[in-house]
Amino acid sequence: MTVAETRPDAENERGRALAVLAQRFGERFSTGAAVREQHANTTTWYANEPPDAVVFAHTSEEVADLVEICATYRMPVIPFGTGTSLEGHVNAPQGGVSVDLRGMNQVLSVHPEDLDCTVQAGVTRTELNTHLRDTGLFFPIDPGADASLGGMAATRASGTNAVRYGTMKDNVLALTAVMADGTIIRTGRRAKKSSAGYDLTRLLVGSEGTLGIITELTLKLQGIPESISGGVCPFPSLDAACQAVILTIQSGVPVARIELLDEVQVRACNAHSKLDLAETPTLFLEFHGSPAGVAEQSETFGAIAEEFGGGPFAWTRNAEERTRLWQARHDAYWAALQLRPGAKAIATDVCVPISRLAECMIETKGDIEQNGLVAPIVGHVGDGNFHLCLLCDMTDADEVARADGLMQRLVARALEMDGTSTGEHGIGQGKIKYLDAELGDTVRYFRAIKQALDPLNILNPGKLVRI
Amino acid sequence: MTVAETRPDAENERGRALAVLAQRFGERFSTGAAVREQHANTTTWYANEPPDAVVFAHTSEEVADLVEICATYRMPVIPFGTGTSLEGHVNAPQGGVSVDLRGMNQVLSVHPEDLDCTVQAGVTRTELNTHLRDTGLFFPIDPGADASLGGMAATRASGTNAVRYGTMKDNVLALTAVMADGTIIRTGRRAKKSSAGYDLTRLLVGSEGTLGIITELTLKLQGIPESISGGVCPFPSLDAACQAVILTIQSGVPVARIELLDEVQVRACNAHSKLDLAETPTLFLEFHGSPAGVAEQSETFGAIAEEFGGGPFAWTRNAEERTRLWQARHDAYWAALQLRPGAKAIATDVCVPISRLAECMIETKGDIEQNGLVAPIVGHVGDGNFHLCLLCDMTDADEVARADGLMQRLVARALEMDGTSTGEHGIGQGKIKYLDAELGDTVRYFRAIKQALDPLNILNPGKLVRI
Repeated sequence: MTVAETRPDAENERGRALAVLAQRFGERFSTGAAVREQHANTTTWYANEPPDAVVFAHTSEEVADLVEICATYRMPVIPFGTGTSLEGHVNAPQGGVSVDLRGMNQVLSVHPEDLDCTVQAGVTRTELNTHLRDTGLFFPIDPGADASLGGMAATRASGTNAVRYGTMKDNVLALTAVMADGTIIRTGRRAKKSSAGYDLTRLLVGSEGTLGIITELTLKLQGIPESISGGVCPFPSLDAACQAVILTIQSGVPVARIELLDEVQVRACNAHSKLDLAETPTLFLEFHGSPAGVAEQSETFGAIAEEFGGGPFAWTRNAEERTRLWQARHDAYWAALQLRPGAKAIATDVCVPISRLAECMIETKGDIEQNGLVAPIVGHVGDGNFHLCLLCDMTDADEVARADGLMQRLVARALEMDGTSTGEHGIGQGKIKYLDAELGDTVRYFRAIKQALDPLNILNPGKLVRI
Repeated sequence: MTVAETRPDAENERGRALAVLAQRFGERFSTGAAVREQHANTTTWYANEPPDAVVFAHTSEEVADLVEICATYRMPVIPFGTGTSLEGHVNAPQGGVSVDLRGMNQVLSVHPEDLDCTVQAGVTRTELNTHLRDTGLFFPIDPGADASLGGMAATRASGTNAVRYGTMKDNVLALTAVMADGTIIRTGRRAKKSSAGYDLTRLLVGSEGTLGIITELTLKLQGIPESISGGVCPFPSLDAACQAVILTIQSGVPVARIELLDEVQVRACNAHSKLDLAETPTLFLEFHGSPAGVAEQSETFGAIAEEFGGGPFAWTRNAEERTRLWQARHDAYWAALQLRPGAKAIATDVCVPISRLAECMIETKGDIEQNGLVAPIVGHVGDGNFHLCLLCDMTDADEVARADGLMQRLVARALEMDGTSTGEHGIGQGKIKYLDAELGDTVRYFRAIKQALDPLNILNPGKLVRI
């Protein structure tokens, strides 16, 4: 049931809410069609569902005011960072107000001696790392996009460095959030650990704006490693590459990044980024540590790769060469798009126990081929997490149906292997349908928590859990 | 309000509940005074508040039956592992049934290639590590006691290895839990990461049995390091030792353990464990890695220690010597007790940002001395976490009052420094009174979650949050 449907005078109420918001936020309130559509932009195949209005907020107090007004008039509130989420998180299926937090872009404090900082939610990961450049510290979580840190927390983002540094859940010390009744809370303090009560920090991380709107974050920082080495390593097969990954992780090599590209993706990267990599399953790696440490790690990995018929593993400490390689990895999405001009790229991800990774990837690759689809595979394989970038002609109904079937089977396959329907993209609108299969009765308690913390169902309704 | 007070025929209902439980659990149901008292045993100064009965459960299904029976009769249920928690977690202030999970001691599966295992909640950390001994893997979290893994998760335990491997929140992949209505849920799967919905795993970790009863855990495992080195390093002052710790952490030395003992604790350990350490603030350290890696780490630390007037840093890879030192560290509690025979040891802990650690410790030490109290300090200093072991003559009302005052000021001091009232012991009964000061309005949402998931308030009532 939508928020609007629950009340007979809902339309009038919405009109009044918009009038009150317009008065409160002046020029930072917009109902322009282009602005509204842009704020419902999704990089999926879901239809654009624009909000009724967009408000550009600058402080936690403003967000609290906005939520209070919206609560009064039963108006949905959809938090918006950079709009780079992948499962329709910023759509407004029930209308409402998109609250754009991109103007909350202040780094509020950096405590180098405590390896932490506090930022407003709209700061992007690149902005933070630019701000930190003279401190010798960095923030390691790097989803493909230059997302806002608030959005990254809200979707429990991770990326290539997660194998070494964890995901957003591991790197947030405390949050400031606006709850559904407009109360501003602070979920924790700057102590590195605490056992003081329920972990509301971790409950809000990954809650996709449905339990509270994250407005500030206290984040853990890492020292920039004394030495970084990296390189690429070709393998004769996906299976060989996966076996090398498993042994590397098992051997306790503290690899900072270990990314797998299948031969289709390597071909795309060669064309897009002017590389001349062998067009075979390939691992991109990075090691962080002391000079002796990274040399040791690189050599250990090289020996493991050889054991599985991989190699040669060409590694370098040269920053320029490394950057060129990783830029190619980060541009994988754009490279993939060029494989089939005019097609839409549908990104999806699953994550399985690493022992099942090869099997899951190989079965999926067979499924792609059998169905005549184009879908390069890229994986954060140290975590058992991989992505399909499905290149789909959206005007071809049969192809769309085949693509949909592929994604459903991919999730079923991951679940059957004790994995998850999404390693890092989140549930949003797109994966709600898989939640019961993945978590069973647990979903009832999701609903109980949602109803307890947002009884009017105004916070990003229609996402993560059906009410 | 207690559970019993809410219903006029509460006493009759409790009697009926006990009769039903007696029938259901036969010999594994006990109302004997000694058994009941033992199950409310606390290592604090709180009075023993025994439950009405104890049930020894063997399976999740039995726990679910028990909770369903107790829900019917509004009977509190208090989960019990090894009874080593420190803040009155196992007391039964409103009566009820203690459910002893120690018989749930099966390691259900080990997946060496995925670095994970699944255990019943009653398995202790030592039992798990014994089970793992031929796999090359270990579970790193080590609170002082040989606690049950279910209890460790429920109290978000950590210990000496947390600086390297994190706390229980970082090492639990998924939980099986019995909820307040008797439903058995599984909060996640074996994938190393997931962004599928609310993080119920992390919500249950640290919830102290108030939201659900943890019956099984899927845990991350670590490879046993190829090489381990360790040693002790004396410092001229607490401040110098803390400064060395800060620089070590900042320099990115991946220290596995870094423990501070003040001179009072060193004296106690010398006497108890027949050591001849200089009686001055001392760091105990351990490094994990490759042989070259641990040598490099040890040398880096040695140089840092020297910078702050510490040393000499005597380190060794000899397992026997290391074990002797760490045994002394683990026996610190018993050693402290002998400083003042007949006194009761009251253990408490706080955690502050590491930059404030020296200041917090030094002020606390001054406070101890000014109040004529005996309270050696031991700290997991890499995390900014330290413990007082207050040796108190409980028959001396004035001393008890002074001890109480000291602990209140300790918490106020930690909070003023943006720290927490408890780094790893939990809230239980003892620290509820500090929660508002620490988390403000956040506590309201604790209450909302508790009421949503346990509307009858039967799960460990009187702990963590006031309803």
